[in-house]
Amino acid sequence: MTDLPRTVALLGGGVIGGGWAARFALNGVDVRLYDPAPDAEQTVAEMLDNARRAARRLTLAPLPAEGSVTLAPSLEEAVAGAAFVQESAPEREGLKRDLLAAASRAAPPDTVFATSTSGLLPSRLQADMEHPERLTVGHPFNPVYLLPLVEVCGGEQTAPETVERASAVYRALGMRPLVVRREIDAFVADRLLEALWREALWLVADDVATVEEVDDAIRFGAGLRWACMGTFLTYRIAGGTAGMRHFMEHFGPALELPWTKLTDVPELTEELLDKIVAQSDAQAAGRSVRELERLRDDCLVSLIQGLRTHDVGAGAVLAAYERELFAAPALGDPSSDGAGEPAPLRLHTAVVGPQWIDYNGHAHESFYLQAFGDTTDALLRHVGLDLGAGFSYYTVETHLSHLGQARPEERLHTTTQLLGFDEKRLHVFHSLYRTDDEALIATAEQMLLHVDVAAERTIPADPALLERIERIALAHAALPSPERAGRSVAIPG
Amino acid sequence: MTDLPRTVALLGGGVIGGGWAARFALNGVDVRLYDPAPDAEQTVAEMLDNARRAARRLTLAPLPAEGSVTLAPSLEEAVAGAAFVQESAPEREGLKRDLLAAASRAAPPDTVFATSTSGLLPSRLQADMEHPERLTVGHPFNPVYLLPLVEVCGGEQTAPETVERASAVYRALGMRPLVVRREIDAFVADRLLEALWREALWLVADDVATVEEVDDAIRFGAGLRWACMGTFLTYRIAGGTAGMRHFMEHFGPALELPWTKLTDVPELTEELLDKIVAQSDAQAAGRSVRELERLRDDCLVSLIQGLRTHDVGAGAVLAAYERELFAAPALGDPSSDGAGEPAPLRLHTAVVGPQWIDYNGHAHESFYLQAFGDTTDALLRHVGLDLGAGFSYYTVETHLSHLGQARPEERLHTTTQLLGFDEKRLHVFHSLYRTDDEALIATAEQMLLHVDVAAERTIPADPALLERIERIALAHAALPSPERAGRSVAIPG
Repeated sequence: MTDLPRTVALLGGGVIGGGWAARFALNGVDVRLYDPAPDAEQTVAEMLDNARRAARRLTLAPLPAEGSVTLAPSLEEAVAGAAFVQESAPEREGLKRDLLAAASRAAPPDTVFATSTSGLLPSRLQADMEHPERLTVGHPFNPVYLLPLVEVCGGEQTAPETVERASAVYRALGMRPLVVRREIDAFVADRLLEALWREALWLVADDVATVEEVDDAIRFGAGLRWACMGTFLTYRIAGGTAGMRHFMEHFGPALELPWTKLTDVPELTEELLDKIVAQSDAQAAGRSVRELERLRDDCLVSLIQGLRTHDVGAGAVLAAYERELFAAPALGDPSSDGAGEPAPLRLHTAVVGPQWIDYNGHAHESFYLQAFGDTTDALLRHVGLDLGAGFSYYTVETHLSHLGQARPEERLHTTTQLLGFDEKRLHVFHSLYRTDDEALIATAEQMLLHVDVAAERTIPADPALLERIERIALAHAALPSPERAGRSVAIPG
Repeated sequence: MTDLPRTVALLGGGVIGGGWAARFALNGVDVRLYDPAPDAEQTVAEMLDNARRAARRLTLAPLPAEGSVTLAPSLEEAVAGAAFVQESAPEREGLKRDLLAAASRAAPPDTVFATSTSGLLPSRLQADMEHPERLTVGHPFNPVYLLPLVEVCGGEQTAPETVERASAVYRALGMRPLVVRREIDAFVADRLLEALWREALWLVADDVATVEEVDDAIRFGAGLRWACMGTFLTYRIAGGTAGMRHFMEHFGPALELPWTKLTDVPELTEELLDKIVAQSDAQAAGRSVRELERLRDDCLVSLIQGLRTHDVGAGAVLAAYERELFAAPALGDPSSDGAGEPAPLRLHTAVVGPQWIDYNGHAHESFYLQAFGDTTDALLRHVGLDLGAGFSYYTVETHLSHLGQARPEERLHTTTQLLGFDEKRLHVFHSLYRTDDEALIATAEQMLLHVDVAAERTIPADPALLERIERIALAHAALPSPERAGRSVAIPG
């Protein structure tokens, strides 16, 4: 994560600026935010709450300690000494141009500037800046703390290095920079969004469909394909084995049909506005924007996690980000296998995400085993097992006891006590606690076998590994045996 | 599932017709398909393979026994006696019109006809039919066996009952009919797709982006939002707490900007065709259409399952479909708790979906507990526990033993032996087998407690329930105790 600056300055704290604040802070970057709006502080705090909630669901990878978010009293104080500035002011060219010019004079000469503009040309926005070569477009998508896409586009005066430096920062935030090589109004993504949006407005204006029916026509059909593959690869597949040329020649003529209404721009009359607002209210069915935001975020988290399984699209971006997080050196170790009083290791935390909740409103049984399995993984990393070297420990037996219920969104942590080991075996006892009140919720006693993964057979562990295990086992020998260790399942006689 | 006919006739067996064949057959409907193309049989067989694979991943709900798919030698033999006909011929008005007219003369007078047309007007397609009131559009989306959307749109002569009957059939297939009340070219969905597609072609034609960059601009950003919420609800949220009117007034003016190229239709010159084909080949990176289909299907399955967690969009459609499947009366019971030799119950099958595979290429530990938990759920349904009545059995202890590895796509089944019970407890022993070779892969011994869910305390089970449990326990008393019952976790001394 060396590409991340220690501190960034954000200009503008609305939905986009607040989203940036959350993404930077959750990646350990201190944020200085300038926004003269009286509600900026509240908006940013709400975005940060949403983002924390989403990040806890999205990944169990170790995020760095959260950065601070402070409101700067002036533009100059925000950008002073900042290595990276992200501007997210309202979408008016004159305003952005003045803001960037003023900020460029107050910041150090090598500061990188990125603008969140969704469609204004960087060549025009950089025109009045000192060192205009430092400006690039960095156009994110709402919610900024979840969607990986960020369009990066330089203007006529932009240095190639600026595009590279901004891309590296976004990548380190877990995002997917898409470098747009040719500067055009609205870049790539918003051209596509705008085309669909105009047609959607016509369908509602002409009473062909309500806003909810338009949404249904997307989310039950092509929207699912767009989430995984976009449009060209989807059509390549639809063309079947005959290939892309066949598809284009076959379906190309439909482009000539007078289907879309896109030759005109729908006029936003009072009548059309009233209609859309009334239909949108009906669609929201009394749910507040905050409720809908949480629902959207939960869905996005599940979609991204689903794609991660296949290493596709946004899921592939998440997987790469997690590999970085896991590879980062730990910031101090919460265990006590060195000096001090012996205590069980504390290696893993978890949150009960919505995907684990069953019809009783509690976590499904398999959640517990996932939490204990992740704890075992953390233990193996802790003792220095190199999973890339071809050896691993496999679980051969687990005894689970349920002493309480984990509920949605509760924060949990586990502890691990080493009960025994030999050159091929590890005998461990994990306990799962609710973090708020330290209530014991479940325990797992496990036997693990050291295996040669390719050969699929047990094999003695490396002596250096056994030495580290022995150090922990010696410390844990002083601990009392857990009450539920050694149990078997039986109806008391 | 009473809305499903026993037999349907399909006219056309390409990507869409083959997809329909798969969706009907997997829902237990016999399919008679007419397609004069020499490769129709192979296309349909391949679609059916894809669909079976996807269905196994998508749901563990009990699907009916698969229907047969037979090729009919003539149009007349396909539609004779069919209660439902789905036409999926090439998208040419004259061809479809003639085909529907001929089929309408050969079919019984009350047969419902649906056409898969993606944009032709039903009023014109029904013009030459006998009993034209029987035709409706039923426009599905590729892959038909996975995407729930189907646009239903009648023509001038269509009877309202036809629209209702077709919608009921689609709903019983696990789809989401969207009734389009006003007949227009391309209906709703393809207008939106077409708008986006035209703009995408312009971006490539003008060398702003490659086909892969266009796809990236969608799948890393708005595509994820479209999969869960469509476009209007997404923008409502983006507008923040100020609401939809604020959003429209704020972002409306951007519609006037000269962003999109949609005033023109891009001409499909040889040069543009060559460019798109070459870029599409690069994007496919040597993967065949069959490989890409499987990747697309796996992603769609994960996306739909992710949305099911939140009861949103395509996930809500799946959840409703599964409730129907679970509620359907079982077609005979594979257990032996009545007459015959006593044997463990065989209540559950599972397939190792890709979401369960960990970095070793094996199923994650929690997969096994999921499979055993589902087996316990099946047992509770089997003994007649009514989960809606406010009582349930909760697992308090589980002892898992791993004897083998489950690998991706393997078919597994479980058996269950009742080891004991009292008025509050159930003591069960589950075994998980690989179905192909009956290899024992894992076992789970569990203790369950009968609870009052609302009061969160144990309570004796209903005598009628206990009686059914006792009957099974008595039969199982004659079975030997499983080898691994009663174990505790320990390193052998």
